[in-house]
Amino acid sequence: MFNKVLIANRGEIALRVLRACKALDLATVVVYSTADKDASYVALADEAYCIGPANSTKSYMNQAALLGVAKVSGAQAIHPGYGFLSENAGFAEKVMQAGLIFIGPSPENIRVMGDKIAARNAMLASNVPCVPGSKGALGSDESSLQTIAENIGFPVIIKASAGGGGRGMRIVHDSSELLSAVKLTQEEARKTFGNPEVYLEKFLQHPRHIEIQVVSDSHGNAIWLGSRDCSLQRRHQKVLEEAPAPNVDSELLARVGDRCAQACMAIGYQGAGTFEFLYEDDEFYFIEMNTRIQVEHPVTEMTTGLDIVQLQIQIAQGEKLPLEQADVECKGHSLECRINAEDPDSFVPTPGKITGWEAPGGLGVRVDTHIHSGAVISPYYDSMVAKIITHGKDRDEAFAKMRLALRETHLSGILSNIPLHQTLLDDPSIRSSSVDIHYLEKLLSPSGDAKEVTS
Amino acid sequence: MFNKVLIANRGEIALRVLRACKALDLATVVVYSTADKDASYVALADEAYCIGPANSTKSYMNQAALLGVAKVSGAQAIHPGYGFLSENAGFAEKVMQAGLIFIGPSPENIRVMGDKIAARNAMLASNVPCVPGSKGALGSDESSLQTIAENIGFPVIIKASAGGGGRGMRIVHDSSELLSAVKLTQEEARKTFGNPEVYLEKFLQHPRHIEIQVVSDSHGNAIWLGSRDCSLQRRHQKVLEEAPAPNVDSELLARVGDRCAQACMAIGYQGAGTFEFLYEDDEFYFIEMNTRIQVEHPVTEMTTGLDIVQLQIQIAQGEKLPLEQADVECKGHSLECRINAEDPDSFVPTPGKITGWEAPGGLGVRVDTHIHSGAVISPYYDSMVAKIITHGKDRDEAFAKMRLALRETHLSGILSNIPLHQTLLDDPSIRSSSVDIHYLEKLLSPSGDAKEVTS
Repeated sequence: MFNKVLIANRGEIALRVLRACKALDLATVVVYSTADKDASYVALADEAYCIGPANSTKSYMNQAALLGVAKVSGAQAIHPGYGFLSENAGFAEKVMQAGLIFIGPSPENIRVMGDKIAARNAMLASNVPCVPGSKGALGSDESSLQTIAENIGFPVIIKASAGGGGRGMRIVHDSSELLSAVKLTQEEARKTFGNPEVYLEKFLQHPRHIEIQVVSDSHGNAIWLGSRDCSLQRRHQKVLEEAPAPNVDSELLARVGDRCAQACMAIGYQGAGTFEFLYEDDEFYFIEMNTRIQVEHPVTEMTTGLDIVQLQIQIAQGEKLPLEQADVECKGHSLECRINAEDPDSFVPTPGKITGWEAPGGLGVRVDTHIHSGAVISPYYDSMVAKIITHGKDRDEAFAKMRLALRETHLSGILSNIPLHQTLLDDPSIRSSSVDIHYLEKLLSPSGDAKEVTS
Repeated sequence: MFNKVLIANRGEIALRVLRACKALDLATVVVYSTADKDASYVALADEAYCIGPANSTKSYMNQAALLGVAKVSGAQAIHPGYGFLSENAGFAEKVMQAGLIFIGPSPENIRVMGDKIAARNAMLASNVPCVPGSKGALGSDESSLQTIAENIGFPVIIKASAGGGGRGMRIVHDSSELLSAVKLTQEEARKTFGNPEVYLEKFLQHPRHIEIQVVSDSHGNAIWLGSRDCSLQRRHQKVLEEAPAPNVDSELLARVGDRCAQACMAIGYQGAGTFEFLYEDDEFYFIEMNTRIQVEHPVTEMTTGLDIVQLQIQIAQGEKLPLEQADVECKGHSLECRINAEDPDSFVPTPGKITGWEAPGGLGVRVDTHIHSGAVISPYYDSMVAKIITHGKDRDEAFAKMRLALRETHLSGILSNIPLHQTLLDDPSIRSSSVDIHYLEKLLSPSGDAKEVTS
């Protein structure tokens, strides 16, 4: 059991975790780079320590500095947030070796899920539906490669085991291109990731991105908390998310959700996690599991009424899940707009000083942000500066509330993508939820030259 | 059926009603006095009309101007908010006579509930528990008065039928004072309210203020939505409210709640309403019914997940209630702090320009306000400028979230009662919910000279 938590992150998620700690009456320790010294959560925390310069490799990724702060402050647990060290198995290990609690799964679970082939094998063992593909890493024997690809059917996609985020992958439309494409991808993977392993999968042409949130405790209990649709992405960055994923057969979803929970139990998973799927023609295809809290977790909180960050902390405390699968109720519909400090046309980041910020309010409107009037958006970090979340009794109401919430929002001093969100909310294809993961890129490049790449 | 609503109010409730209309995809018409021309909701509404000068009797209370705006704009329904004309039966009547829909109960229901004796008789007819008291208006025959008072037991309180808000009442501790007190109160009532009728009731010494929210449709269905505790009051103004009321036997509450719903059905009530009770020694005593939306309605929305303003509109549309009593679930606990533009020590209003406003955020934090940085708080209206509402899985969490939310809130340019709320949140008696309606006044006057007056 612990009563003081070190929050090893910055920005909105640092404040999000701080709020969860305060709700649980836990003391909070935050860290900050010199660029973040004036952040709102620094003043709200019980203790705050500067851990280095703006460059995150020297501050938020500085494992020794973080462990040092934990020691000095007497924090007994570390919440890693998302990004930075949140999925770094080595860091989780060091935290444990220092006698502290890592608020997240075991280093072993992080490691398995960070390895695409190992993750896929773990999923297959629990009957979580995967994209049909090669069993393990590909060799370089042309006739074996041809057999594997033909059994799956072209087009196929070659992916680096150590890749992710759209890097280290190549689509192959025809058997004649296969061998050279495999070799090229292996070589690139070796250079980029230090690991030449690649595998091959069925290439889905127009999938949606649907994910399933899970929480799993240290007593062998795991539950899933409904679905999220995150198909609206630009360059593999999610832009607008919703829960539940529309137009998905509820029995199919329950079957896949139950298998996700079973997979957690099978690997002894502890904490919150997300199973990401591609979804095409009424089939789910596992792509990866994120072993941390995700940016879009609020839409699940709004529909289930649960606080996922509190659950992470309670699970790390050794508590049992406070509910069973049968108690999970998903009510209404929720949307999240990620507000980025970027030019809405060119998508170029727009760091600078915020001269005015008015947040929207009212019933079913939630704002997760650390920004305020006078805050300075640093060029060193992610451009996502706020999340506006709405909840309504149905999808129409969630959209109507978001449309008004964005009109209520005033952000001045820097450009943001609020105008893009306003366009998306009125887009007929988005309104009718008939969009795939390529839709946004195509919408933004009306000439139709969006790259044919998926993740 | 209507698709355009005139919002006959100002401030946070005007924005609250506008948000509900937008969520239901209804067009909105707002009105504003010259003092409110820059209000945020003026810019958010589909149409906005200036209806007069700052003085509300010439603008927000100007019935002819409001009906004129309805005609010009083509609004088919009028939402009165709270205060101003919201409980004015004559106005509701004029709205109907103009062929428009008044979003609220019938003029007859408003009239009955505005008359304390008629309201009490309506309650007794539905077995809603009332304070033991005289049957009807008191005469001036001393021996009859003595009999009535002795049957009830001293102390008793004499109240004007047309009174309210603490005015027109007098406590009598001893039979020797009775006749003169009755005569004095009758004379005052005649002068103050133009109606000399007074009645007599058991005087409760240390009651709590607990109220029950109801909604009732035009098809004969009525439900109650749990309880609220509003005991923390200063000069009959509620300061901090919560739902549900702590430490009330749930079977007793259900019995009283069911009777409130039955009373609504018995009188053909349509819309949202609140049954206000004093609560002492495990007994409820009806004091009055408010036939409008109340300032503190959000705490009920947070615990039930229902949007009461939307329900008001849907009922006025002739729709059936979307749920039955058995479907009403009260989850967790909710608090509301009324943020007033006033000196936290002297309680003197502090109109002026807001130079900075940062609202709190995150899961379970709701802000209902029309203010923003640069807004000017007018001296002409109520000093309540924002409501901060929190929701947690239990009372402790709701308090913890409110404590942080108030720290996150920054309001500069004017003084506010935020420091008072911070004191209240840490007060041991409030934390253990062992406070009556006199507690706050006593806390604020440590000399113990709080007046012995109730409402």
